[in-house]
Amino acid sequence: MPRSGESGVVPNRLGVHAGVWVGDWSPGSARYAIESSAEIGYDLIEIPAVDPREVDVARTVRLLDSSGIDAVVSLALGADTDINTEDAATSARGEALLGSAVDFARDIGATYVGGVTYSAMVKYTHRATAASRENSLAVLRRVARKAGESGISIGIEYVNRYESNLLNTAAQTALFIAELGAGNVVLHLDTFHANSEETNLASAVRDAGSRLGYIHASESHRGLLGTGILDFAGLFRQLAESDYRGPITFESFSGAVHPATTVGTIGIWRDPWTDPALAAREAHAFLTAQLAAATQSIDAA
Amino acid sequence: MPRSGESGVVPNRLGVHAGVWVGDWSPGSARYAIESSAEIGYDLIEIPAVDPREVDVARTVRLLDSSGIDAVVSLALGADTDINTEDAATSARGEALLGSAVDFARDIGATYVGGVTYSAMVKYTHRATAASRENSLAVLRRVARKAGESGISIGIEYVNRYESNLLNTAAQTALFIAELGAGNVVLHLDTFHANSEETNLASAVRDAGSRLGYIHASESHRGLLGTGILDFAGLFRQLAESDYRGPITFESFSGAVHPATTVGTIGIWRDPWTDPALAAREAHAFLTAQLAAATQSIDAA
Repeated sequence: MPRSGESGVVPNRLGVHAGVWVGDWSPGSARYAIESSAEIGYDLIEIPAVDPREVDVARTVRLLDSSGIDAVVSLALGADTDINTEDAATSARGEALLGSAVDFARDIGATYVGGVTYSAMVKYTHRATAASRENSLAVLRRVARKAGESGISIGIEYVNRYESNLLNTAAQTALFIAELGAGNVVLHLDTFHANSEETNLASAVRDAGSRLGYIHASESHRGLLGTGILDFAGLFRQLAESDYRGPITFESFSGAVHPATTVGTIGIWRDPWTDPALAAREAHAFLTAQLAAATQSIDAA
Repeated sequence: MPRSGESGVVPNRLGVHAGVWVGDWSPGSARYAIESSAEIGYDLIEIPAVDPREVDVARTVRLLDSSGIDAVVSLALGADTDINTEDAATSARGEALLGSAVDFARDIGATYVGGVTYSAMVKYTHRATAASRENSLAVLRRVARKAGESGISIGIEYVNRYESNLLNTAAQTALFIAELGAGNVVLHLDTFHANSEETNLASAVRDAGSRLGYIHASESHRGLLGTGILDFAGLFRQLAESDYRGPITFESFSGAVHPATTVGTIGIWRDPWTDPALAAREAHAFLTAQLAAATQSIDAA
């Protein structure tokens, strides 16, 4: 639940990606990730989508309830589940996967499914075509309708050129969402990806406009917040000026947590940290301080 | 040839990547790229390595002579010519390709061969192994010896996590070069890649230390210089403080110049510009202004 700030402003909820803590969603991992997130003071945890028929959904619900934090769900389509394609069979698998993620979110009481939901998260070898883009829009219209029936929003997370050929900037994504035309589809801004594609973080927020619904706070090198190139102060000032009220979720991955397959997929060749609790605690303190500074700066102006 | 600056300091030579102008090295492309670069005032042109048996090398030499500019050579190994591998046949193909690039450089009178010379330029799916790293070092020791016989230096250009699993930072690269142990191997810093991996550009220059030998000036989104996130002023101040005297070469690619295969390999999903001459002219003016500002700032201090 959003907390009331000192100045009467409802501050943004802070989240942490479950991948900071764990590399799977076994019962032990679920308990560890949820309880550790709550203990630090996070308001929500972002859980990678799993097939709701393959996990103990009721257990996840109980853990969230007893810890008092909310969940959101994320996923990235793969080459064999791409909807940014002209191949009908591949697209159908992608639509089924998106539907399954919506089911999982509904079953655990989450109201947001975001990520690379419009394209495979791969290095493409060709530009997107008009037809593949249209197909992605058509699939997402159906997925958004299904999600809306459960009060769930769909997030479109644009990524850098190495992870999609379709949406690499906030401006492209805002246009895509406008064409999509569903009220429950929002723009998901990841600061790591924005760093490789945008003029700056503040301009990305302005380009996103009122569609901005979710933020991944991820450093330029995907390590600890504040140790890279990103201008977080400028970002948070713009978020305050734009009156952004959505979640801000810390994302960072380490080989200390993830198996070799995930390391290979994401490209974690250097471990940015070895202790998840330390990383998550530092990120929470960093984000809290940035929010406070930006709010003060706006209040003073 | 280096020019003498007003303050008696020999300023850095400014270069431009041939890929700004052309997508091949046909006689017409060679003339256009070399003459256009010289006309703007660039001191050197970076030419992607081609098999010296397949091009009219003498023609390139005449064009360089008549235009009065120098050339450097660059290349990136591929998956089938990787030396960051435990596969002997693949490594042998890579060593042959590096040798061919050195031959091309020697034949056109270039004294530098740089790029992704230590690894394939691909998104790996696994971490580098101790054995693949050792193999890369062993091959490069032989290539450096061969290059040294023609007075040629080898540049090691570290790249972001999506284009190599071996060298992603200046610190890693400085260590790699120290282990390599050849006096004619230098560190090649590309600002686009550094943006995704380093604490900041100035710290990357400091980490590179005295091994820094070549710079790619490439914006955070690989478009026009000064329109992205990079702190070029901070970079140039550090270069002046570190007394860096090597070349600074503008690199940017557009689908307006390159065929679909190159667009797909590099991931140029958005064209940052359509007029190469405008891009090259703006970059030359930008780099000249940055150098002047940094020199003044150092002189004043």
